[in-house]
Amino acid sequence: MVLKMSRMKYAPLLVFQLVLMVLYFVFVRYGDGEDVGVKGFEDTHVMIFIGFGFLMTFLKKYCYSALGFNWLLAALVIQWALLCQSFYHMKDNVIQVTKKSLLEADIMSATVLITFGALLGVASGVQLLFIAVVETAVACLNIWLVADVFKAADVGGSIAIHSFGAYFGLGVSLALRSKPSTEAPATNGNTVPAVDLNGPSYISDVTAMIGSIFLWIYWPSFNSGLTKTDAEYQRAVINTYLSLAAATVTTFIISSAVSKYHGRLDMVHIQNSTLAGGVAVGSVCNMHIGPGGAIAVGIGAGLLSVLGYRYLTPKLTKLGVLDTCGVNNLHGMPGLYSGLLSVLFAALATKEKYGAPELGAVFDAMKDDGRTASNQALYQFIALVVTFVLSLVSGFFTGLLSKLPIFESLKENEKYDDEINWELP
Amino acid sequence: MVLKMSRMKYAPLLVFQLVLMVLYFVFVRYGDGEDVGVKGFEDTHVMIFIGFGFLMTFLKKYCYSALGFNWLLAALVIQWALLCQSFYHMKDNVIQVTKKSLLEADIMSATVLITFGALLGVASGVQLLFIAVVETAVACLNIWLVADVFKAADVGGSIAIHSFGAYFGLGVSLALRSKPSTEAPATNGNTVPAVDLNGPSYISDVTAMIGSIFLWIYWPSFNSGLTKTDAEYQRAVINTYLSLAAATVTTFIISSAVSKYHGRLDMVHIQNSTLAGGVAVGSVCNMHIGPGGAIAVGIGAGLLSVLGYRYLTPKLTKLGVLDTCGVNNLHGMPGLYSGLLSVLFAALATKEKYGAPELGAVFDAMKDDGRTASNQALYQFIALVVTFVLSLVSGFFTGLLSKLPIFESLKENEKYDDEINWELP
Amino acid sequence: MVLKMSRMKYAPLLVFQLVLMVLYFVFVRYGDGEDVGVKGFEDTHVMIFIGFGFLMTFLKKYCYSALGFNWLLAALVIQWALLCQSFYHMKDNVIQVTKKSLLEADIMSATVLITFGALLGVASGVQLLFIAVVETAVACLNIWLVADVFKAADVGGSIAIHSFGAYFGLGVSLALRSKPSTEAPATNGNTVPAVDLNGPSYISDVTAMIGSIFLWIYWPSFNSGLTKTDAEYQRAVINTYLSLAAATVTTFIISSAVSKYHGRLDMVHIQNSTLAGGVAVGSVCNMHIGPGGAIAVGIGAGLLSVLGYRYLTPKLTKLGVLDTCGVNNLHGMPGLYSGLLSVLFAALATKEKYGAPELGAVFDAMKDDGRTASNQALYQFIALVVTFVLSLVSGFFTGLLSKLPIFESLKENEKYDDEINWELP
Repeated sequence: MVLKMSRMKYAPLLVFQLVLMVLYFVFVRYGDGEDVGVKGFEDTHVMIFIGFGFLMTFLKKYCYSALGFNWLLAALVIQWALLCQSFYHMKDNVIQVTKKSLLEADIMSATVLITFGALLGVASGVQLLFIAVVETAVACLNIWLVADVFKAADVGGSIAIHSFGAYFGLGVSLALRSKPSTEAPATNGNTVPAVDLNGPSYISDVTAMIGSIFLWIYWPSFNSGLTKTDAEYQRAVINTYLSLAAATVTTFIISSAVSKYHGRLDMVHIQNSTLAGGVAVGSVCNMHIGPGGAIAVGIGAGLLSVLGYRYLTPKLTKLGVLDTCGVNNLHGMPGLYSGLLSVLFAALATKEKYGAPELGAVFDAMKDDGRTASNQALYQFIALVVTFVLSLVSGFFTGLLSKLPIFESLKENEKYDDEINWELP
Repeated sequence: MVLKMSRMKYAPLLVFQLVLMVLYFVFVRYGDGEDVGVKGFEDTHVMIFIGFGFLMTFLKKYCYSALGFNWLLAALVIQWALLCQSFYHMKDNVIQVTKKSLLEADIMSATVLITFGALLGVASGVQLLFIAVVETAVACLNIWLVADVFKAADVGGSIAIHSFGAYFGLGVSLALRSKPSTEAPATNGNTVPAVDLNGPSYISDVTAMIGSIFLWIYWPSFNSGLTKTDAEYQRAVINTYLSLAAATVTTFIISSAVSKYHGRLDMVHIQNSTLAGGVAVGSVCNMHIGPGGAIAVGIGAGLLSVLGYRYLTPKLTKLGVLDTCGVNNLHGMPGLYSGLLSVLFAALATKEKYGAPELGAVFDAMKDDGRTASNQALYQFIALVVTFVLSLVSGFFTGLLSKLPIFESLKENEKYDDEINWELP
Repeated sequence: MVLKMSRMKYAPLLVFQLVLMVLYFVFVRYGDGEDVGVKGFEDTHVMIFIGFGFLMTFLKKYCYSALGFNWLLAALVIQWALLCQSFYHMKDNVIQVTKKSLLEADIMSATVLITFGALLGVASGVQLLFIAVVETAVACLNIWLVADVFKAADVGGSIAIHSFGAYFGLGVSLALRSKPSTEAPATNGNTVPAVDLNGPSYISDVTAMIGSIFLWIYWPSFNSGLTKTDAEYQRAVINTYLSLAAATVTTFIISSAVSKYHGRLDMVHIQNSTLAGGVAVGSVCNMHIGPGGAIAVGIGAGLLSVLGYRYLTPKLTKLGVLDTCGVNNLHGMPGLYSGLLSVLFAALATKEKYGAPELGAVFDAMKDDGRTASNQALYQFIALVVTFVLSLVSGFFTGLLSKLPIFESLKENEKYDDEINWELP
């Protein structure tokens, strides 16, 4: 009986995959070829499947699950996100799919994978699938609010993708928090193995670097993929490149400075905080922030992220809010930081707007609807607040639902362990 | 004496490399720059050298050979394939090489690497080199029959590359089958180590995922690389993307459903059957199969491939027909499936042909020579049958020849082992 | 006290990063969008951060440092190189940064990473940072001499990048040579661990292949990135592709032929000498060397490189000149070889120049300034000699300076060991 249930645990997933197929047959058609020249699709594809997948192999006994569930979740979400995103832009009840739609679906899947990072090793496969399906729908609603209702600029998705994914994940984590204060440091027979497994081996930290470095390499493509003009595209590439470089140098400096072990570097910082430069510059990378400004943003991002890993995450863990990959430090806070920068640069757009029409063009509502700079700044702020609240709240309730017995929560001694999901050698 | 012979074992390869050089000096010239814009070359290059190479590192003690021989074979075959393929299109006894020729040479090398997958760990380096040289020549003849004589549509090479490579490999395997029924389960001193080594370690299954995921990521580029128009290109990318996504989700579901261990996932399925969606859609990916159709194709591919690994491969192994990577399940059967789909869509082309001229354009012979849809369907079928028979038969005879003493067959206790080929740490 | 000093060891780096930020604010502006179509940037980016990084993970206990310092050095150098290179081309005291500048900065960082390869495991982090900053400035001066003063052709950077980086590294190594003859074979307690760690493990040689193969795959993009016409671009891609393929086949043959162990292959050769084909063809890859010529160049490169690893490196090591990755065999000698080929093809350009104007176009000074072929050949030679002497001498003096106490040289028992730099699991 147990056997049969285990084998059938993905039966609802099969039903969902078949429903997706039917929806595609009914609603989706090939678009015309005008988006064929879209940049950054292949690079973003590497980030989603290699980047996120390998970054999460840092746990010593959870590499198969990290790679496997990353792949499964993304393969499911890209199909589902393409529908959810296009739902708000249907014409005659038909969805026109182009190469650009695929890029947008890939970008949306990052949201879910960031959430997965918060829950790595503590949520079961079935829980993750349920969370992914719900999160995608809410995140697509949110991105519609940000881009189409508030008309906020967020070309690299730091608000609508990175912040959303991180705080949705922390919302779930808050809901999954079982016994707040006594659980974490408990040392009874059951929890010991799980606690033991929540850490890297020498080789798992090396394979995690595959993911980390590929994410870093292709981040300029990710941030610039949805730009519209050559000048905007080039600014996005240059700013992201410089911000990442500066964040990387800063990460090494600060990791050594705050070390508990004689100035030694912490691989967690190197794998993650180096990337915070890409998140932090995301919402403003296509603006005239200046190459020096991009470096300044990156320095701030590296600093913020390492300090978060070093001082904030242990506090959250003590409160029972688990965040296995520390997505709050890589995606959450740097995303909020980027959102605030977008408020700043929108407010500063006033005098530049007429002198440099290109800058105005970044804020479509200023160009097309005559919105003022301070109004644009306000809408950037609203977009940020709505994203933060919506992600946290919807994540929390999704987390509560995911504790229902049908979603097969993990026991303490099943956490961070490939054993329950995989035939191991 | 033994020493000297071992050191000189690659002497014939040196001669062949020098002959290639002379042939290039005599026959090959730079083509003009009109193919410079060819898409997908760099991505395909990653698939051949990283994708195939790392996918085959799943054996615990054969990683060096997997990576090394993959590299050696492909580096040799791309030089040789460029000559063999262009042989049928020479003008004034001159071969014009362009960036597109490099892409075609890369694609051809996939054929040999698929065959290598069937023989992984059981054929010696010298055998593999002999097989590769012969196979390339025959496969180039076959692709000329398929594309130029039968004028069959096969843009992603599922017929001429994937099926050919798989069944050539199974043909060789059939010929190498030494003592059919008693050999496999034997447990005498000699065979035990080999049997022991024919399996993964925890880390080798992780490095294999590097190859698997890169193949998956760049498959849309592979299938669309030789398309001619933007609309056709975009259909190829979208269909391959969706088919792969659906095959991936299906693979997880079915792997769990047919598991012998409480619904646990099998890494072999995850590494391989996920990719079957790319093969299955290959021959038809540029056609108007519809986004829903692409998902349906992918679901079928995942199902077919996992069931093949689970139930068919063990039967073939019992019969002595070894297929180390299970290429029959990843390339063989999905390739035949794709070929049959191309028959179907050719037959359905009739009424679409006039309504949607783009579809007709996929079948050059229907557009240029006035071939009817049912005739086109017939030629698609002939191309599939000829490929299957030619690959199996030529593989079988090549396998028989490779058993000659000069090719240094492996003894049972030398199989699946880097020891005989590499200085190990 | 010791603790505090260790934690503050990167304080000068923080100052340098802040100085860079200020320089960018003052001098650097976005260029216009005309270089947006530059080819090869993303591919080169992969080579720098994944390629060089993972290639150097071959040491069993130095993977974190290889990946980490590679990343840190490159992230620092790209910011610094962009300034140093552009210094010679400023207009109105302003540096215009474009996507092409990023490519050039990436290419320049390769110089420093090659030097890092020579010093892998024997120089401390602080030494490496000091060396990187000095080397970048000198290398940018040298590339200005080669390209703008001597007007030598060197599109793939085999002279100004590969040779420079290798001989700068050997110059440093010469200066670091502590006790020439007795040190190396010493077996007292202190040196034993270091000697033990200067070698690979089974898995570290596999991860090194990730780097090696990605370098190999994207080398055609690296060599062709700075070409100016489609025809020149295509020649660069084809020649690099063929030279690499031939070098790879040759490497396997020669590695087996010179083996001390029954013809077994040496992973060091496979990881490195395969790439020598890309270096050797670099300076001439955009010229009319012919596809057969490209294969000939590659065969020579594989031969030269394997023989260097097998017979020359052990001699240098005995003399106390350490070269951990053998960059002399991968970048140094193949770079000189490529430089000499450029002398040859410049001299041969005479009669071709008028018959095939495209060839002339490769040598800008012949087209624009009426320089003769023999004069061009002379300048190619001067560029090569100046590069060799400048790199070796400046490397030597930089090495001497790096022995100052403030740069924290490693003790014998700290070499090749992640322990001193990293919190290990």
